[in-house]
Amino acid sequence: MKKHLLLSCLLLAGIGTSVYAQEPVDAAMTQKIREEGLKNSKVMETAFYLTDVSGPRLAGSPGLKRAQEWAVGQLTKWGMANAKREPWGKFGKGWEVQKNYAAITVPYYHAIIAIPKAWTPGTNGLLKSEVILIKADTITDLDKYKGKLQGKAVIFDVAITIKQSFKADATRYTDSALTAMANTKPQASRQQQRPADFANSPQFAAMRKARAMRTAINTFLKNENAGLILSMSRGSDGTVFTTNGASYADTAQTVAPELETSGEDYLRILRLIKGGQKVEIEADIKTQFFTDDLQGYNVVAEIPGTDKKLKEQVVMIGGHLDSWHAATGATDNAAGSAVMLEAMRILKAVGFKPKRTIRIALWSSEEQGLHGSRNYVLNHLGDPKTMVLKPEQSKISAYYNLDNGTGKIRGIYLQGDSAAGPIFQTWLDPFKDLGAATVTAGNTGGTDHLSFDALGIPGFQFIQDPLDYGTRTHHTNMDTFDKLIEDDLKQAATIVASFVYNTAQRKDMIPRKVLPKAPEVK
Amino acid sequence: MKKHLLLSCLLLAGIGTSVYAQEPVDAAMTQKIREEGLKNSKVMETAFYLTDVSGPRLAGSPGLKRAQEWAVGQLTKWGMANAKREPWGKFGKGWEVQKNYAAITVPYYHAIIAIPKAWTPGTNGLLKSEVILIKADTITDLDKYKGKLQGKAVIFDVAITIKQSFKADATRYTDSALTAMANTKPQASRQQQRPADFANSPQFAAMRKARAMRTAINTFLKNENAGLILSMSRGSDGTVFTTNGASYADTAQTVAPELETSGEDYLRILRLIKGGQKVEIEADIKTQFFTDDLQGYNVVAEIPGTDKKLKEQVVMIGGHLDSWHAATGATDNAAGSAVMLEAMRILKAVGFKPKRTIRIALWSSEEQGLHGSRNYVLNHLGDPKTMVLKPEQSKISAYYNLDNGTGKIRGIYLQGDSAAGPIFQTWLDPFKDLGAATVTAGNTGGTDHLSFDALGIPGFQFIQDPLDYGTRTHHTNMDTFDKLIEDDLKQAATIVASFVYNTAQRKDMIPRKVLPKAPEVK
Repeated sequence: MKKHLLLSCLLLAGIGTSVYAQEPVDAAMTQKIREEGLKNSKVMETAFYLTDVSGPRLAGSPGLKRAQEWAVGQLTKWGMANAKREPWGKFGKGWEVQKNYAAITVPYYHAIIAIPKAWTPGTNGLLKSEVILIKADTITDLDKYKGKLQGKAVIFDVAITIKQSFKADATRYTDSALTAMANTKPQASRQQQRPADFANSPQFAAMRKARAMRTAINTFLKNENAGLILSMSRGSDGTVFTTNGASYADTAQTVAPELETSGEDYLRILRLIKGGQKVEIEADIKTQFFTDDLQGYNVVAEIPGTDKKLKEQVVMIGGHLDSWHAATGATDNAAGSAVMLEAMRILKAVGFKPKRTIRIALWSSEEQGLHGSRNYVLNHLGDPKTMVLKPEQSKISAYYNLDNGTGKIRGIYLQGDSAAGPIFQTWLDPFKDLGAATVTAGNTGGTDHLSFDALGIPGFQFIQDPLDYGTRTHHTNMDTFDKLIEDDLKQAATIVASFVYNTAQRKDMIPRKVLPKAPEVK
Repeated sequence: MKKHLLLSCLLLAGIGTSVYAQEPVDAAMTQKIREEGLKNSKVMETAFYLTDVSGPRLAGSPGLKRAQEWAVGQLTKWGMANAKREPWGKFGKGWEVQKNYAAITVPYYHAIIAIPKAWTPGTNGLLKSEVILIKADTITDLDKYKGKLQGKAVIFDVAITIKQSFKADATRYTDSALTAMANTKPQASRQQQRPADFANSPQFAAMRKARAMRTAINTFLKNENAGLILSMSRGSDGTVFTTNGASYADTAQTVAPELETSGEDYLRILRLIKGGQKVEIEADIKTQFFTDDLQGYNVVAEIPGTDKKLKEQVVMIGGHLDSWHAATGATDNAAGSAVMLEAMRILKAVGFKPKRTIRIALWSSEEQGLHGSRNYVLNHLGDPKTMVLKPEQSKISAYYNLDNGTGKIRGIYLQGDSAAGPIFQTWLDPFKDLGAATVTAGNTGGTDHLSFDALGIPGFQFIQDPLDYGTRTHHTNMDTFDKLIEDDLKQAATIVASFVYNTAQRKDMIPRKVLPKAPEVK
C-alpha cells in the first residue's frame, strides 16, 4: 500500500491527517514483512523446540536452560549479534519432577491426576498410607494430631465443588468488546488502582489470617514428618492449575511433599472419608533440586543499529520464556517467546538494516514476580525504588511485550502513554485485514512491560484474543503445543516485526509519560 | 392440582380434551410424589454409593458386583420384594486395573495421562523402552519390524490434532429445540434407518479395511511380543475417552498391553519422534482378569401389585448399572440407576399400593451391546430373532429407561408408539413447571429400551438435557460424582415415579405398536 493511498484510507475512515501525516508507513517494507511472516513462517518450528523438545521451563530448571541455550544458538544462526544467556543476579534453587505417581488403593484402585507443587520434596520412595482428614480451624486444633501423622497422607476439607461449564472454553474478542476497549478512558497505572486502605480492610485481614493458618499447618505437618499433603487444584475435567508449594530461595526451609490434585480426584477422596469410608493412597514422587548455579538468566540478542546518531538508541521486544512445571508452557509463554524470536528472524530475513538497535530479551522467573525483567531494568536502566536512572534509561525508545497466550494481536494497550496512541493507530492500519486495529487507553498488568513502565520507559503489551488461556492453559498441566494456533502466531510475529521496524526507523523516539516519582518510603 | 383445574389448564393451552378426559391424573398423589422426590430426596446418597464407594463398574468387574450388592441390599431395606442379582447367562471375563503408571523419561521426565484399554493385559512389571513409530500402510510393511519389537513400546502416526473448543461443554435444550422435537414426524425405528445398501458402500468397505489392518497389526504386535501399544484417545484437556482393547470372551486371544493415551501426551510423543527426537517411556500396568464366574447379572426388585386382576401385569423401569473403567460412570449410568432406585424409594415412601406390579431392573453389560437387558428379554419375554413370545410378553405394560446422563427430564421419546403420545402428554402436564413437557414422535437409540421395543413391548427413554455428557463425561475418565446435578436427578426421579404410578394404576395397559415381524434370515 502506497503512502498516499494509506492516507486516503485514513481519510475515508474519518480520521484526521494532522497527526498521521507525521507517521509515514513504508508500504513496501510492510509488504515484505507480511510476506515473510505469513508465508515463510518458522514460528511453529520455534515453538516446537521451546515446548516439546525443551520440556517444562520452570525458573532455574534444566528445561529452561535447554530452551535458553536453544534460543541463543538459533538467534546466532539467524545472524543476530551478541546472543547470550545474561545473568541478572541471584534467583535460587532449580527444581524438576523426576517421578510422579499416585493412586488410591482402598476402597479400590484408581490412579489419580496430581502434580507435585513446585519446589516441594518427593516421598523418598513409595509411600503407602491411609489418607487422614485434617480438621483444624485454629492452631490449637492441631494438637490432637500430634505424634499421629508420621509418614501419613493428609487432606483438608474444602467447600468448593466442580460445576460443568455453560460457557465456551475459547473465545475471541467481539467487535463490540474491541470498540469498548477503543473507547476506554485513560487509566491510572495499575499500581495506583488498589485503594491505599486495602491493607486495613477486613478482606485483607481475612486473607492474611487464612494464609497464616495454612503456613502454621504446613510447618506443623513438616515437624510431624507428614508423608504427603494433598491439596485441591483449580480446574476440572483433567485440567490441573499448578502453583508452588515452597520458596525457591536457597535459604528456604524444607516442607512436606505436596501434590496439587485434580478436583475430581481430590473431591472423591474427600467425599469418601467424610462418608465414613477408609481411603488409602500410594505415591512415589521424586523431585530434584539444583543448587550448583543460583543465578537467574535472560536471553538477549541484537540487530545492531546502523545510523551513526541513532544506533545508541534501542527498540526492545520480549516475553518471558520461563513456565510452570506441569506442561511445556506453550501459551504461557512459549507463544510470546516464539513470536518475538520470529519477529527478529523476519526482520533479518527481509534484510532490514535498522537505524536504531533492536534487542530481544527472553525473561526468566517472570512467574515468581517478573524477576528477570525487573533485574534487567535494575542492572541496565535504573532503580524504580529510588528513581536513580542510568544513562541507557533515556535511550530505550520502547519495549513491546507478548504474554497473553496464543491469541492473535487485536491491538495494543497504551499503558497511560496517550501520546503514543495516534502513532500506533497508524502503524496498525496496514493490519486491519488481520484483525488488529484497536488502540486502548486502558492498561494491562501482570507481565514484564511493567518493569519498564515503572521506570518511565514506554512499555507495552499487545491486546490478544483470549482463546482458552484463562480456562484451560494458563499455568496448567494442559499448556501444550497442541493449544498453539499457527495462524495467530504468524499474525502476531508479523505485526510485532512491523512495530519494531517503525520504532527503529522513526524520526523520534516514542513519546514518554511524565517520569514516575520514587515511591515514598513509609 | 385438582382434575377440573388441570383440564381448564389444558383447555387454556389450546389442547382438546377428547383424549385427555380419559387420562385422569391423581393430583393428590402427584403432590405427594413431588414432595417426597423434591424435598426428601436420597438420590445423591444413592449415587455416592454407586460411584465413589463402588468404584468403576465395568461389566463383570468387582466394582459392578459391589454396586449390585449394595443396590440389592438398599432395595430390600426400602421394603422392595424379591430384590436379587439375577443371572442372565454367560458374559465373559471380569477385569480391573490394579496399577496404572506411565511417563516419558527421555528427552525429559513427564508423567502421562493414559488408561489401559479394557480387557488388555499389564506390562508384567516396569517396562522401559524407546517408543517406536510404526509406519505401515499394508500388512507387508510390517515385515521390516520383525524381530525388533520385543518388549518395545510402539506408537502410530495419526492425522488428528487437538483444537480448543468455541462451544460450551454443557448445554440444555432450548425452547426452540424442544418445539422442534415436539413437531417431529413419526420415525421408523432406528434399526430400519440405515440404508440397506450401506453394507455395499465404499465407506463401509474403507471402515472394514481399516479395521482389518488394525487387527492384523495388533496380531503382529502380539506375536512379536511388543511391550506396550500407545493409542490416542478422543478428548482433550485431560479428558480421556476409553474403549476396550480386547474381547471379554473367555475364549478371546490375548493381546499386547495397550494404553489409551490423552491427546496431549500422545501427540507430544508423536511430534518428538517425527521431529527426530528420541523418546523413552516407562510404564507399570497391572490388570487383573476374573474367570471364577463368567455369568452376567442384572439387579431386579419389585413392588408387588395388589389388584387381583392386574397384579400379574407389570410396569418396568430400569437403566444400566455397568460403566466404563476409567472413572465411576456417574453420568453413564449411575445417574439413571440412582434415579430409578430413587423412584422406587419415593413410591414406597408415599405408601403406594400399586394395582399392577412394579419392577426395577438395573442392567449389566449394556456397554458391550445391551447384553443384560437383551438376555433378560430373551429369558422372560421372548426371542426377537424368531418372534416366538413367552406369556409374560403380553403382561409388560411399559418399560421406562434412563441413560442419557445427569440432565433433567424434558419429555419422552415415543419410539414409534404414537398411541402413547396423548397419554404421556397428560402425565407430563403436572411437571411443566419443572421443564418437562415435550412428547416427541422421534426415536432415540443406543440403550436398553431397544431390547423391549424389539419384542413389541412399549419401551421408552426420556428426553434429558444433554449437559456435558457428549463432551466430557460419556465413557471418559472424568465421569465422576462431581458431574451429577442434584436438582436434575431429583426432578427426574419425581417424574419417573409419577409415570410409574400412572402406568400401574391406569385402566388399560399402554397401547402397543403393531408387533414387529421376525427379521428375515439371509
